Amino acid sequence: MDKPLQYANNKYNDYKDQLIDLLKIPSISTDPNYNTEVRRAGEWVVADMQRIGLTAELIETNRHPLVYAEWLGAGDNKPTVLFYGHYDVQPAELADGWDHEPFEPKEKDGFLYARGAADDKGQFFIHVKAVESILASDGELPVNVKFIIEGEEESGGESIEAYVKNHSDRLSANVVVVSDTSMINTEQPVIVTALRGGVSMELHVSGPKSDLHSGAYGGAVHNPAQALAEIIAQLHDTNGQISVPGFYDDVKALTPEERAAIAQAGYDFEELQAETGVPQAYGESDFTILERIGARPTLEITGIAGGYYGAGFKTVIPQKAIAKISCRLVANQDPDKIFDLLEKHIMDITPPTVTTELVKLKGGRWAQMDIVNPMMQSAVRAYRDGWGHEPIFMREGGSIPIVAHMQENLDAPVVMMGFGLNTDNLHAPNEHFSLDHFKRGIQTSIHFMYQIAK
Amino acid sequence: MDKPLQYANNKYNDYKDQLIDLLKIPSISTDPNYNTEVRRAGEWVVADMQRIGLTAELIETNRHPLVYAEWLGAGDNKPTVLFYGHYDVQPAELADGWDHEPFEPKEKDGFLYARGAADDKGQFFIHVKAVESILASDGELPVNVKFIIEGEEESGGESIEAYVKNHSDRLSANVVVVSDTSMINTEQPVIVTALRGGVSMELHVSGPKSDLHSGAYGGAVHNPAQALAEIIAQLHDTNGQISVPGFYDDVKALTPEERAAIAQAGYDFEELQAETGVPQAYGESDFTILERIGARPTLEITGIAGGYYGAGFKTVIPQKAIAKISCRLVANQDPDKIFDLLEKHIMDITPPTVTTELVKLKGGRWAQMDIVNPMMQSAVRAYRDGWGHEPIFMREGGSIPIVAHMQENLDAPVVMMGFGLNTDNLHAPNEHFSLDHFKRGIQTSIHFMYQIAK
Repeated sequence: MDKPLQYANNKYNDYKDQLIDLLKIPSISTDPNYNTEVRRAGEWVVADMQRIGLTAELIETNRHPLVYAEWLGAGDNKPTVLFYGHYDVQPAELADGWDHEPFEPKEKDGFLYARGAADDKGQFFIHVKAVESILASDGELPVNVKFIIEGEEESGGESIEAYVKNHSDRLSANVVVVSDTSMINTEQPVIVTALRGGVSMELHVSGPKSDLHSGAYGGAVHNPAQALAEIIAQLHDTNGQISVPGFYDDVKALTPEERAAIAQAGYDFEELQAETGVPQAYGESDFTILERIGARPTLEITGIAGGYYGAGFKTVIPQKAIAKISCRLVANQDPDKIFDLLEKHIMDITPPTVTTELVKLKGGRWAQMDIVNPMMQSAVRAYRDGWGHEPIFMREGGSIPIVAHMQENLDAPVVMMGFGLNTDNLHAPNEHFSLDHFKRGIQTSIHFMYQIAK
Repeated sequence: MDKPLQYANNKYNDYKDQLIDLLKIPSISTDPNYNTEVRRAGEWVVADMQRIGLTAELIETNRHPLVYAEWLGAGDNKPTVLFYGHYDVQPAELADGWDHEPFEPKEKDGFLYARGAADDKGQFFIHVKAVESILASDGELPVNVKFIIEGEEESGGESIEAYVKNHSDRLSANVVVVSDTSMINTEQPVIVTALRGGVSMELHVSGPKSDLHSGAYGGAVHNPAQALAEIIAQLHDTNGQISVPGFYDDVKALTPEERAAIAQAGYDFEELQAETGVPQAYGESDFTILERIGARPTLEITGIAGGYYGAGFKTVIPQKAIAKISCRLVANQDPDKIFDLLEKHIMDITPPTVTTELVKLKGGRWAQMDIVNPMMQSAVRAYRDGWGHEPIFMREGGSIPIVAHMQENLDAPVVMMGFGLNTDNLHAPNEHFSLDHFKRGIQTSIHFMYQIAK
């Protein structure tokens, strides 16, 4: 194993330059104007994988192509790793507040600044370079490897869902490695052990057939903006618990061990206030702040609008008002069931003076990863030897729906080896990725492959 | 009196053509691009008044000029009428949904279609033409008349407020006639006996220092859109009464006579539903629909906004959310006191997890008109003889702040002789004014001047 580790160190500058090349391609998947750029990024990845000795191809889908690659020379008696990542990125332009063009990468103070640097080009590329380092120095890998790198994670991800479902044989593996999450800090790696699911929806509250003059009808017509507020106010109790009957029925209680693991992270109101500036914490008093954020289901109003809200004033009773609602779900909550419960509750509390409609936008399942799985323990050792510190296990508040989908369809444990930082400005201007993380990530990935080959 | 009435009938087509000329001037007072057009409309009115024999002038203000005119030849032993109106109009353009250019008047089915036809050029012009008809046929008027026609009613009205306050001697009169309201239908004139006051404000609810990712902080941070909804939900009780302590303290109870007069109008849920399409009426069950609309104070959410409410979805906890609030006030509520009560209530119910601010935008006083005043009775007889039907007395839900201001400063009764219809599309595309109302309004105004001269 020493040769590949050394090889990676020697090739660090080349690997960095290759990553910079990939970061120059504006593979913005949500904007059809960038369709050819997205494809170009996929082709770039395929070419790089072929160059290092993998069999790689672009797989056509209804939207952006998938990259699939494999090296199966280790044989049937060796395990197979499937690496997941995505080569598409969030939108970005200079005017959003970037210090430089987001697709002209800049190196500064040990960080590489570019859209996609951490999310997710820099992260999945770590494993590509780990594989390259072993193949180049040993001529073979200690395990079989497969890569599935998608091009629409930032804009739906429907294509990979269909592909995973219909090609579970081709993707079959003993472990799936996903690198699209964050660590606490450089010296404290994290393996995420749970991701929340989610369901997003839009609530419409309608009253009169058109906007009315508030002086002419106010007092005798239920104002839809007011009715919307009254309905929203009945979705949480004063303790911040969600008031929808049945909402918590399927929530798996946290074990004392899980609570102890969460407490280990040592995050409290001081950190929350430093990060957000809120005057006081909110939410379920029976749970710590980190439990509320990462381990409990939530219901958030992500948008609200009705009537006239521009400069000045219009004396209007709005015809309708809307709210966008996002629920984060935990084991064993089902997104469809939660939507149905919410719909029923909202219909139950809708006064007869207005009409409501709840429209489902998107749902995704939560995922839980088994800590005692041997693959997880191999990852712990890989971090210890490759990074220099053992990782801690942590729940993550966000959602990566493809994880639960791969768990279900591939019947393999998922190990979330995240190499980013929460301060990397994901989805924001001046996204960046630590080059030290890039380097140590490659070492860790090499160690991981040798660990699971034992 | 027969000669002027006949004269008016003979000159009807000329009067209509003159009104069309005035309607061609786009005197949109809220948009500074139209400042010269507003002035041109004022100059047009001055010229018309001078032509018919009044002393008239344009009075400069900080914004749009006032038109003042007078004929005081009836002498001190005759009463003086002050006619109020406004020559400015709401914005309008073809693209808003007009069937034709809004400043190219069209006559159709007995109506004149143009911006300002009913609000208020067509209405105040009735009195100008009544005065012209008498002066042209008799050489003198039975009473003294004054006109104050403002150019910024649709955009603040500050200039006339200052002028009324500082020039109450010049404007002094025995009765003020305001024609800027509506009748029930062509055969049922209405004299409005009460106007509501109002106060408008903006409620700001702030939480974190910037938008947050709902997956990263949801559950531990009070969502400002949710907090705003929770606050709004505490502004009314389940019976539609306003829950702000002290809000109703100064409300003068309706007398049995007033309630009987309101009941006489015979407006109930059928009409409300036909006009608005709401599934059920809302509001204070102890009051009839018409009482809720016209005689009770109200609190309306005229706009609400926060987070992301465009197409698609953004998983964001908004930094802040806002609501625009409009209160309609009745005797003897004071707009400043009501604002203070609301501010105190909102501060009292603001949870410690967010911060709130209530910003006052504009306040105006309610007005009540004395039914038994002799001027009011003269108006009743004028309608009977000039229109063909006695008017009913009715409260109006809307607000015309200058009315209370003139009552206070001029110490004269106000008679609201409205010649419009609620179906005239005021402030909306295809505004129109009945030419039959124009004709009968002139007859009524002539009768009124002779009535009060008796």
